[in-house]
Amino acid sequence: MHEELKKAVCDANIELQRKKLVIYSWGNVSGIDRSAGIVAIKPSGVSYDDLTADKIVLLDLAGKIVEGQLRPSSDTPTHFELYRNFDSIAGICHTHSVNATAWAQACREIPCLGTTHADNFYGPIPVTEPIAPDEIKNDYELNTGKAIIKRFVDINPAQMPAVLVANHGPFTWGNSAGEAVETMVILEEIAGLALKTLVINPKQKQISKALLDKHYLRKHGESAYYGQGPEE
Amino acid sequence: MHEELKKAVCDANIELQRKKLVIYSWGNVSGIDRSAGIVAIKPSGVSYDDLTADKIVLLDLAGKIVEGQLRPSSDTPTHFELYRNFDSIAGICHTHSVNATAWAQACREIPCLGTTHADNFYGPIPVTEPIAPDEIKNDYELNTGKAIIKRFVDINPAQMPAVLVANHGPFTWGNSAGEAVETMVILEEIAGLALKTLVINPKQKQISKALLDKHYLRKHGESAYYGQGPEE
Amino acid sequence: MHEELKKAVCDANIELQRKKLVIYSWGNVSGIDRSAGIVAIKPSGVSYDDLTADKIVLLDLAGKIVEGQLRPSSDTPTHFELYRNFDSIAGICHTHSVNATAWAQACREIPCLGTTHADNFYGPIPVTEPIAPDEIKNDYELNTGKAIIKRFVDINPAQMPAVLVANHGPFTWGNSAGEAVETMVILEEIAGLALKTLVINPKQKQISKALLDKHYLRKHGESAYYGQGPEE
Amino acid sequence: MHEELKKAVCDANIELQRKKLVIYSWGNVSGIDRSAGIVAIKPSGVSYDDLTADKIVLLDLAGKIVEGQLRPSSDTPTHFELYRNFDSIAGICHTHSVNATAWAQACREIPCLGTTHADNFYGPIPVTEPIAPDEIKNDYELNTGKAIIKRFVDINPAQMPAVLVANHGPFTWGNSAGEAVETMVILEEIAGLALKTLVINPKQKQISKALLDKHYLRKHGESAYYGQGPEE
Repeated sequence: MHEELKKAVCDANIELQRKKLVIYSWGNVSGIDRSAGIVAIKPSGVSYDDLTADKIVLLDLAGKIVEGQLRPSSDTPTHFELYRNFDSIAGICHTHSVNATAWAQACREIPCLGTTHADNFYGPIPVTEPIAPDEIKNDYELNTGKAIIKRFVDINPAQMPAVLVANHGPFTWGNSAGEAVETMVILEEIAGLALKTLVINPKQKQISKALLDKHYLRKHGESAYYGQGPEE
Repeated sequence: MHEELKKAVCDANIELQRKKLVIYSWGNVSGIDRSAGIVAIKPSGVSYDDLTADKIVLLDLAGKIVEGQLRPSSDTPTHFELYRNFDSIAGICHTHSVNATAWAQACREIPCLGTTHADNFYGPIPVTEPIAPDEIKNDYELNTGKAIIKRFVDINPAQMPAVLVANHGPFTWGNSAGEAVETMVILEEIAGLALKTLVINPKQKQISKALLDKHYLRKHGESAYYGQGPEE
Repeated sequence: MHEELKKAVCDANIELQRKKLVIYSWGNVSGIDRSAGIVAIKPSGVSYDDLTADKIVLLDLAGKIVEGQLRPSSDTPTHFELYRNFDSIAGICHTHSVNATAWAQACREIPCLGTTHADNFYGPIPVTEPIAPDEIKNDYELNTGKAIIKRFVDINPAQMPAVLVANHGPFTWGNSAGEAVETMVILEEIAGLALKTLVINPKQKQISKALLDKHYLRKHGESAYYGQGPEE
Repeated sequence: MHEELKKAVCDANIELQRKKLVIYSWGNVSGIDRSAGIVAIKPSGVSYDDLTADKIVLLDLAGKIVEGQLRPSSDTPTHFELYRNFDSIAGICHTHSVNATAWAQACREIPCLGTTHADNFYGPIPVTEPIAPDEIKNDYELNTGKAIIKRFVDINPAQMPAVLVANHGPFTWGNSAGEAVETMVILEEIAGLALKTLVINPKQKQISKALLDKHYLRKHGESAYYGQGPEE
């Protein structure tokens, strides 16, 4: 059942290792089939070398396992909280990739310092508030999701497909598991660019609203003219 | 038609990925056949994995597509502005490679801090002025080219085959598409060298005019004695 | 004799090179069979390209060579001091990997700045006191081990499987030679993360005790729920 | 003639590319057969991809080409000055590898910050004085060699097989072309270690004389006990 979804989620997970965003069993990717009400996610603690589509765990929207012999990722409740609140997304990715994680550990949003960033994210990459001790003790992974949702109260997740969880690391999302991984690759790239930019010029400001709009909107939205058109 | 030019431009684009200067569909390379009045350029938003010579777009000097099923790179008007103003060049390259882009995002020229730089560029790598909001809204890519031309009013593009577009990234050029890519590889290397040099010694000054002249001119110009002579 | 131990120790040594933690003959891994009273260790100054299981040196607990044509690693007395004092460990690894060694050379413990660190180490990575000149002149390698033991007087080596020897580099350990190497890979990763975190935000503090406990204990100890359970 | 020397020098040059210390035609390695009075060196401006043993240039001690169709490296007079003054060496290597070159461009000696450094170099890596304008204009490459010799008036080149030429980059040497390259690989590693160490702790001092002596002398000299003995 849901072979296509399981394969897509498995491939997206393995792509994390190919892009050098993870080591050992770190990180996880999920995908959702909203019409079927099924979420597919990486099993917990399994190395990417050993991952195959039949090991992907399927859960219903209540969080009950409907297929799979293995425990799902311990971050599953975070994924579910995002799927419940961000209607437009169908894939989620989490890693500890070095540049994005360094910004998350520094509890600093990534300022929009150039057009590479603006091509992909419509503003600075937000960072969550730290999670309170009692929210850590109980339902920690669910509360991680809630901290993300709280941070996005005024942000459109379709225009900002990434977040830094303070003291922890990045989550990205998109229209599919594969797209979430592609966004993670790009986030890692712009996180590294921003770090080096501020080493060269610690006082560098963010780019203008005009330049942000031009670059984001020439690739996204109704008037986009980058690429080969809407069928892409 | 123009199979040789298309193949050279396709190969130069693919070389960007091989040298790890680009990810996904980022960056673009073009070449010009001045006698035929034809520019060949990468199609917009196409991944390097999928790029073949028959996908390269051909345009005449008025900017009209004369061959190709795909839209040309969105940066095409920038390339055209450079070809119109820099008579000596026949290939152009644009990337978001990390070290050079960090300097561009920092809006800082790359000072000439050593002989590696002087072997290849006759002075600091210039950075453009930021582009004004109204120049961003309309004809943005053309105005990017104009900002480069304005910055080069007193600079010889044959001796300085690179520029940093402020808040954006590097462009390089040369006698062919392939040479433009080789210069981008070297720019990325010296951008990384300069960053690390200033981390070690933030007060380091540029090298002397005597050392710059010696290294640049032993490889370039009439008295060059590096390499195997003019037939190279 | 002890073919399995020799092979495991040989494989673990070669893994160091595969993970790019060592060059040439740098670094060493050992393993112990406590029931047999035998330690297996890399021979001194042998390149990883030339290493085979039959070159692994076997010693008894008195430090006498019981098998092998080559001299054991010059760091052997350090390994022995750790095996004598840390009952729970069965493998030790030493490298000069760049990020962990930079922290060791800086004589700074690695603060626990994020959940990646907390997933694997229960607190900051300790650094030893410098070794006194007379302890350097005689029995230097033994005294290196003693400096580690002294630093761990109040630390449980099962919860903190790594140390930075001041001015020198890291040692890691675990339930096997292979596990010691895996911990070294992770130490190198979190050392790089910590360095970049402090470049972005030099004033960043360590994570809370609540977050450290949550992450360390969800992977380790009785209530662990990360991974596929205790049989892993 | 001298096929063995040409092959050794060719292999050592190609090793530079394999170790990622050079791009394109950058860098050069030479070797000397002192009994025959012959120096073998890389031809100028030839890419490592195209290098074969029959392209290696042979010169006599007066600097006259005795075999080879190509011009020798433009740095040949620097190599000759070193061979004339350092009796104990038989191979020389020059690169623009990023970490060592950054220190050279910063005009800073590399302090001895750890045992990795002390295992290989008996003190800080020296940097030359800048070369005066009139020494740049005429016989520049010879004067580069003289600046190195001047810096080594009180340093034993057998115990310090590396130098940083100010504003330029590193030279290393050894008992053969291959050993000079191995020392360059190690210099690049310790240059990167030193840079990161000072980012973590800008006030870190050099290691003690006792620790330097212990590590250098346990690998080098009469009482060495690292490795498999003098036959190595």
